[in-house]
Amino acid sequence: MKHINKIKLKKQELKPASYYFEGIKGGNITILSKAITLLESTKIENHNLAEEIIEMCLPYSGNSLRIGITGVPGVGKSTLIESFGSYLINEQNKKVAVLAIDPSSQKSGGSILGDKTRMNDLSVNNNAFIRPSPSSGALGGVAKATRESIILCEAAGFDVILIETVGVGQSETDVNSMVDFFLLLMLAGAGDELQGIKRGIMEMADVILINKADNEDATKVKLAKQNYKNALHLFPPNSNGWIPKVESCSALNNIGIQKVWDIIIKHHELTTLNGSFHKNRKDQAKFWLNETISDAVKSMFYQNEKIKMLLPKIENDVINGKISPFKAANLLLEEFKK
Amino acid sequence: MKHINKIKLKKQELKPASYYFEGIKGGNITILSKAITLLESTKIENHNLAEEIIEMCLPYSGNSLRIGITGVPGVGKSTLIESFGSYLINEQNKKVAVLAIDPSSQKSGGSILGDKTRMNDLSVNNNAFIRPSPSSGALGGVAKATRESIILCEAAGFDVILIETVGVGQSETDVNSMVDFFLLLMLAGAGDELQGIKRGIMEMADVILINKADNEDATKVKLAKQNYKNALHLFPPNSNGWIPKVESCSALNNIGIQKVWDIIIKHHELTTLNGSFHKNRKDQAKFWLNETISDAVKSMFYQNEKIKMLLPKIENDVINGKISPFKAANLLLEEFKK
Repeated sequence: MKHINKIKLKKQELKPASYYFEGIKGGNITILSKAITLLESTKIENHNLAEEIIEMCLPYSGNSLRIGITGVPGVGKSTLIESFGSYLINEQNKKVAVLAIDPSSQKSGGSILGDKTRMNDLSVNNNAFIRPSPSSGALGGVAKATRESIILCEAAGFDVILIETVGVGQSETDVNSMVDFFLLLMLAGAGDELQGIKRGIMEMADVILINKADNEDATKVKLAKQNYKNALHLFPPNSNGWIPKVESCSALNNIGIQKVWDIIIKHHELTTLNGSFHKNRKDQAKFWLNETISDAVKSMFYQNEKIKMLLPKIENDVINGKISPFKAANLLLEEFKK
Repeated sequence: MKHINKIKLKKQELKPASYYFEGIKGGNITILSKAITLLESTKIENHNLAEEIIEMCLPYSGNSLRIGITGVPGVGKSTLIESFGSYLINEQNKKVAVLAIDPSSQKSGGSILGDKTRMNDLSVNNNAFIRPSPSSGALGGVAKATRESIILCEAAGFDVILIETVGVGQSETDVNSMVDFFLLLMLAGAGDELQGIKRGIMEMADVILINKADNEDATKVKLAKQNYKNALHLFPPNSNGWIPKVESCSALNNIGIQKVWDIIIKHHELTTLNGSFHKNRKDQAKFWLNETISDAVKSMFYQNEKIKMLLPKIENDVINGKISPFKAANLLLEEFKK
């Protein structure tokens, strides 16, 4: 069932919102998948239908742990998700949805999670739902589509949502604003492996997990752990009182996977007790309200025909110091208001 | 002369833009100060006049090193600026302007740089210009006013611009988008001192400078330097090829001040050679164009009477999960478009 990802929608196939809602609430993964395809659609009618479905699902959402997983290509994210997801389903009785954000997926032609052959067990498990990154064509953006997919997955009964990113772009900030917990996957032999990771990501991590620990000699792993611990110690503390952890694992050989879950549970207990879990979710909801408004009004501006015509030259003049950014903005805004 | 900061402007005092421009170009600090007061004004007519002055000054701007200085209160920023500024003027033959960004200055009633008694030498030096943070009343925001002040100061012949922030708020990202070099001032005994520093700031630093090194025993300072070096080593490298440095100084006793300048010069040489200095400035200009547009269109939205009336209830519904952020945004946007 999980292989039905990007279902082509014919117009006559569209059903009323209640149809999708009932299907999702009943845990029907095919219907869940169709609803997500609707919300990723660039067609406004599909998108409006999706928005209706989301509102119906909203009261049944929120009851999951949302976990962001990032790391550069090659660090073993897919293997970790396979191993961690299987552990959650088999040992913790969870239903696990795996989403991804990769804004470059359309450009590169490829997509993280596109190659599901790396998730053999998970992709055929009835308690798992794997969904590749929406294409960058999605109305309102890739991150917004993923944020909305969370609501649908939760209403469908998935109680752990794993959200994968590649750790090289803008998307980590987006992910950070939709998850409860952020996991950064690394390799021992720090330094070189960091080349691809965007600055600022390390400070978001609730846990740094050193993967492929069985491939490296123990001293190297121990040293890497100590280095990261020292580095995290130098960061200002999180406002929620959580002290980021450093652990090692071998995703391929299922070593250290339970530790990861233990840490997430501890984090959940702490943040629930001190109120920051729900405060964070409320802040995130407000963030997405402001973000959606901001995106929409900016798009109103940049899609304006006059602005489209004027912008390239003015932008060039700004870059070359012929006009100040402020004067340039004023000129454009005056045109826009006309 | 430096004591004339916030000159009250009477309407009849307003002169044509060319008057201010000529004064600024001639290095007249009183007129420079008046022009900055104009651009910080909340009155649209003053502000428009200021924008005219800025455009006239623009071709004469750009020829300075713009240096951001941040650190928590008590770390010794004012003392460092006094000592570093005096060194630049006396030993390097520079003209030094000191600006500040403190978005909280109006709320708190106080302001960084407000207390110039800490800058005895600098505040009476004819080659220095010290300007406190604009009040948060400035049209377009405190950061924009500071960014524009840089242009005026450069046209007035100041070739080093120091921009001070308190290291606890949003303003560091703003400063980072207007400077060539970012200095983070710290104390030895890492950990505790970081409590006030906002997460993410350390990764912006081109140099971490440990102040009050003469107050601490040498071992402690050495250890702190090593700790910060290790931490910085774990960060991904800067795209401009610069490896952030860690140094110690005693601003109060003028120890280690020249090292700071040497580092800045090395940074300038490297980034000029590899082209990232000018690329960064161009990127910053583009950033401020987009930022100004974004602020203006958002303000158009949030200042709308209907939106002002509807927003509080809808925001509350979003926070309490009664409506999704996306649906809420759509509702508001439809009202706005009407």
